[in-house]
Amino acid sequence: MATFRRSIITGPCFTPIVQALPSIVPFVAPEEIERSRGRKFAVRLGANELTYGPSAKAVDAMKAAASAAWKYGDPKSYELRNALADKHGVSPTNIVVGEGVDGLLSYVTHLLIGPGDALVTSHGTYPTLNYFVAGRGGALHTVPYGADDRQDLDALVSKAAEVNAKVLYVVNPDNPSGTWHPASSIEHLIERLPSGCLLVVDEAYHELGVDFDANAHVAVDDLRVLRLRTFSKGYGLAGCRIGYALGALEIISAFDKIRNHFGINRISQAGALAALEDQPYLAEVRERIASSRAALNEIATSHDMAPLPSATNFVTMDCGHDGSFARALLARLHERDVFVRMPGAAPLDRCIRVSCGTEEEVDVFRQALPSALEDTHKQLQKA
Amino acid sequence: MATFRRSIITGPCFTPIVQALPSIVPFVAPEEIERSRGRKFAVRLGANELTYGPSAKAVDAMKAAASAAWKYGDPKSYELRNALADKHGVSPTNIVVGEGVDGLLSYVTHLLIGPGDALVTSHGTYPTLNYFVAGRGGALHTVPYGADDRQDLDALVSKAAEVNAKVLYVVNPDNPSGTWHPASSIEHLIERLPSGCLLVVDEAYHELGVDFDANAHVAVDDLRVLRLRTFSKGYGLAGCRIGYALGALEIISAFDKIRNHFGINRISQAGALAALEDQPYLAEVRERIASSRAALNEIATSHDMAPLPSATNFVTMDCGHDGSFARALLARLHERDVFVRMPGAAPLDRCIRVSCGTEEEVDVFRQALPSALEDTHKQLQKA
Repeated sequence: MATFRRSIITGPCFTPIVQALPSIVPFVAPEEIERSRGRKFAVRLGANELTYGPSAKAVDAMKAAASAAWKYGDPKSYELRNALADKHGVSPTNIVVGEGVDGLLSYVTHLLIGPGDALVTSHGTYPTLNYFVAGRGGALHTVPYGADDRQDLDALVSKAAEVNAKVLYVVNPDNPSGTWHPASSIEHLIERLPSGCLLVVDEAYHELGVDFDANAHVAVDDLRVLRLRTFSKGYGLAGCRIGYALGALEIISAFDKIRNHFGINRISQAGALAALEDQPYLAEVRERIASSRAALNEIATSHDMAPLPSATNFVTMDCGHDGSFARALLARLHERDVFVRMPGAAPLDRCIRVSCGTEEEVDVFRQALPSALEDTHKQLQKA
Repeated sequence: MATFRRSIITGPCFTPIVQALPSIVPFVAPEEIERSRGRKFAVRLGANELTYGPSAKAVDAMKAAASAAWKYGDPKSYELRNALADKHGVSPTNIVVGEGVDGLLSYVTHLLIGPGDALVTSHGTYPTLNYFVAGRGGALHTVPYGADDRQDLDALVSKAAEVNAKVLYVVNPDNPSGTWHPASSIEHLIERLPSGCLLVVDEAYHELGVDFDANAHVAVDDLRVLRLRTFSKGYGLAGCRIGYALGALEIISAFDKIRNHFGINRISQAGALAALEDQPYLAEVRERIASSRAALNEIATSHDMAPLPSATNFVTMDCGHDGSFARALLARLHERDVFVRMPGAAPLDRCIRVSCGTEEEVDVFRQALPSALEDTHKQLQKA
């Protein structure tokens, strides 16, 4: 009887969109690689984290908030939003706080992408949005990077017009290339957008960019653009999952229809607020990163690798060969306990991507690279 | 020219489902009430938070994790999932960690509810799922509570069959009533589910319930049921936004197709793990809550209010009048700086809902209630 009952039990009826989704994990975390190989990495320079850590004031604020963690976080992130509004010279109604850029990207797709709706992005740029578009049954259209390893804004806007895109996604500064477009180019892009297409600019690396204040030229109430920021990179709070979107009231208020209102961690709100208030620390971080980028550039050049221009906390190094070479080099570096990553798609997959770090961490990479390169060359000569 | 350009700019094209959503905020937080009235509450007994705070070991773990907040959290929540699997005697593949029950409910709707898909729930139970169902364009069907102020399992399962529901949502123990069904009734309900209907049991208050271990009778690999747990209530980590779903591999693995993989806060993972390991503290919490419930029951009874049976950290008190009376009483309590809440829908809206707290906090409620009741009676006699 029990067997009979069991045999007629069907599983839940997932939606057709979900049924069609592949069972893959979009990113393999360093912890997972460590578990599968049974050994820790010596340095963690693969996820563009701020290894210097967040502001000591942010750490103190989070420690103080920890014992009050029994309270739900303020769903309006009132204090943080007001501080952000002051900083940007906008109204708090132009800002919505979300669970990092990833969380905000999920909300953007919920708001705009229904089954079959088109989104345009660069082939090989930050892929999490693609994952969420698939989760909505949307149609992803990509254009290649330009010959200068920057996102090809002309091709992007043409493709957006061609496919009647609801969203054009640009990462600026870009991950995984590190390259960027100046604010003037973004402004020019906005003027050329097809009607009804929202430009979403992922500015996760904004605080580390050369144009640090320049994007302020984009009018916050422009209905054609939404900008995403995070505390994960320049502010060193990746583990706290907190970021924000900047845009017109009409767009920002729509998030309140679908977001997880009580989703913002209370400790993270406290940490982000304190980090934002410690701008001297951010200035220091920018200097350390500039110097770490210079060191990484020097290491790359001294091994006949070409560092791409970077306005981020990582350097993407052209190994001068194809994707197989870069993948092999990555494996050799992992064997030497150096966690770095590489772009997933051609033509950028000729590169490895190394995050900035302390002098000691960069030294570990510097020491590991020559023999890793040598082994890679040997291996590929044999094959 | 600029004016002309501006005049032809249309806003982004939100999906038809999003366009149809109302612009409301599902819950007004105590902070928001405090801001609008310009004064803090003396006690916070309205959100069923654990005012005793989390385990000191959890606080220590979070403080230690704060300085490592520059690292992304482990997307697999490996250590926490393994500890939970040990505790429940299941495989880690039967567990997915999410951003609290709210985050998990959002994922449940993403997996199962497409436009027009039916979900059945009790009219007036925990409403966040309803919000997410609306966000998917799903069809919400409700049945009234039973005469005993418990969810009416017979009516729920009949309605699920009638509307071909993809999800039947039961909150057990229930919020906002505090009432519960024993594990045997849930087991019986599972046997009567229509084919293809997933029973989602929201067990947010499980750790505080009378059947603390009894639900373990439900086979974790049963394809008909998914259980949701949280660290927000018994473990006192509401501000950390971390919970988990327990279920069959086939259901749990589907979350990996759509969830925000890097969405789980690193500090929260550390706090939840330490809280889970401190079961003696949970036992102490259960005793304190039982004693606080008894005190709240006594206060209610002494004012001719009838406390509903509760297996949670709150007591829902039948004021003996209609919703207008309870709403007026709530306002009078807020004026006296006592933050409590009340069920939103009839017939439970004849009640106010008071969370357990310290003896001092319960005393503040005890002191405020008589004059609040008196003023409410006066006000309604006048009207």
